[in-house]
Amino acid sequence: MSIVVVGSVAYDGIETPHGSVDRILGGACTYIALSASYFNPVKIVAVVGDDFDQEDVDFLASRNIDLAGLERVPGKSFFWQGVYSADMNDRTTLRTDLNVFADFQPKLPESYKSSPYLLLGNIQPALQKSVRQQMNGVRLAGGDTMNYWINDFREELLDTLKDWDFLLINDSEARLLSGETNIKKAAHKILSMGPNTLVIKRGEYGAMLFRQDQFFVVPGYLLEQVFDPTGAGDCFAGGFIGYMAQCGLDLKKGQIDRKELSRAVIYGSVMGSFCCEEFGPNRFRTLTRTEIDARFQEFKAFTDF
Amino acid sequence: MSIVVVGSVAYDGIETPHGSVDRILGGACTYIALSASYFNPVKIVAVVGDDFDQEDVDFLASRNIDLAGLERVPGKSFFWQGVYSADMNDRTTLRTDLNVFADFQPKLPESYKSSPYLLLGNIQPALQKSVRQQMNGVRLAGGDTMNYWINDFREELLDTLKDWDFLLINDSEARLLSGETNIKKAAHKILSMGPNTLVIKRGEYGAMLFRQDQFFVVPGYLLEQVFDPTGAGDCFAGGFIGYMAQCGLDLKKGQIDRKELSRAVIYGSVMGSFCCEEFGPNRFRTLTRTEIDARFQEFKAFTDF
Repeated sequence: MSIVVVGSVAYDGIETPHGSVDRILGGACTYIALSASYFNPVKIVAVVGDDFDQEDVDFLASRNIDLAGLERVPGKSFFWQGVYSADMNDRTTLRTDLNVFADFQPKLPESYKSSPYLLLGNIQPALQKSVRQQMNGVRLAGGDTMNYWINDFREELLDTLKDWDFLLINDSEARLLSGETNIKKAAHKILSMGPNTLVIKRGEYGAMLFRQDQFFVVPGYLLEQVFDPTGAGDCFAGGFIGYMAQCGLDLKKGQIDRKELSRAVIYGSVMGSFCCEEFGPNRFRTLTRTEIDARFQEFKAFTDF
Repeated sequence: MSIVVVGSVAYDGIETPHGSVDRILGGACTYIALSASYFNPVKIVAVVGDDFDQEDVDFLASRNIDLAGLERVPGKSFFWQGVYSADMNDRTTLRTDLNVFADFQPKLPESYKSSPYLLLGNIQPALQKSVRQQMNGVRLAGGDTMNYWINDFREELLDTLKDWDFLLINDSEARLLSGETNIKKAAHKILSMGPNTLVIKRGEYGAMLFRQDQFFVVPGYLLEQVFDPTGAGDCFAGGFIGYMAQCGLDLKKGQIDRKELSRAVIYGSVMGSFCCEEFGPNRFRTLTRTEIDARFQEFKAFTDF
């Protein structure tokens, strides 16, 4: 079942302890779409400038990503530049040029509007809401947000969240959104804001899933080398919704198969871990579904007792 | 099968966001012994001053802990005072008075020497080595260490580790000991130093177990309120060796039941989580084995997929 993904398609400049790239394909929408494309057909909604390379269009198309909603306008594409700390647990943003993204007004092609799955990448809450409203009969919608929207667009965000089935955020964002230091208390407060399902991402430490009566935790995958963590959280989101769409999951139903939902969290973790293995989205140039399923089995093996 | 535990028996002054105590029973040996006592008979080796309260002797004895090796000498008991940060992930030591512990020379009672299990709490490596040498026919020995010994007593520590079956340390200590930033690389380097089994504790994020050909990860238990984390790592150690002793595990054998060993890590995590629920070791005044086994089952439930 097809998945609509909205967010940024951008160029990134990245410096990690393992090297640097001046300009590489990036953006939340890019990572989510690439990741989810291993599970189900994906349709993206985004905007790029006239500097957007044909090579990158071809890369996305090679993963069967529907680009009908990828608007191209005069100007430059969104550009982000950042540098990671030695242990790669922190990063400093050196530059954020919104460029054509500053005036982004997502417009869904007709062919997108009946897709049953919707993933709203980290953009202004009002835009996320507008996309949600353009869809007819969505079975499952959810997305991501960040500190900036939680702090400075709080009411707009709360109004947007009301219509979401799930929210994916990291632990510091969960604390900020809820005003609670304790993660368990924070989670239950967020579950009263609209989403019936909350996934808290903890980077290298894994992720936690909360519903009113269900709870699941997975540790992170231990990589021998983290090459570049850019996009890992978005790839988690892509694997999470990708697997839910593959199973046709509906989170609004009273009785959810908790294990099926947990497997979506595992696939999210699997995709996030692969993302870190090369610069930018390069791992997705070679990654196969067979490798993905093998890593899923690794998770089974190293968490079973 | 009985377990010999060596380490500090002390008084602590603790301040957390939930309150403070001026003087409460503490010390690594105390926590390890209390925790392990739920699984197997425990015999402790430690020294206290003549200020050590009868009430605390009675508390340890009430858990059937053998106190024949608890030496009492003139002077004051080891005293540690610390204050925790708001999120309790950091603590600052305000005072460390070694007192009678400064001249501690562990002497094992004859009745201890044939115990098959030995847990060496965090004390000077040479003293850990001396205890190991006083034992006859130990089946399984291991313990803990810390930054101070890794930095300033490195050769002595490496010489001591050679005879251990397992080492329990936290992730920053593993990086320091190995000189590797990546935890997977750090772990394999440490496994070449002597211990065939390494447990890396990650506080609220759980723990990882490494052997040459085995790997297991468990996420942390999510408490609604962390009251006081003092001693949680030692209680982990107590649950870990306690369960191994209960099963009669021998880590030197070629074929180890990986799941049985993983369950020891879970019991470690369970005991560490209970420890945080009250000030100092107070949770062990009421804790029952039934509660412990129920929490073990909770771990089963929230990690299964």
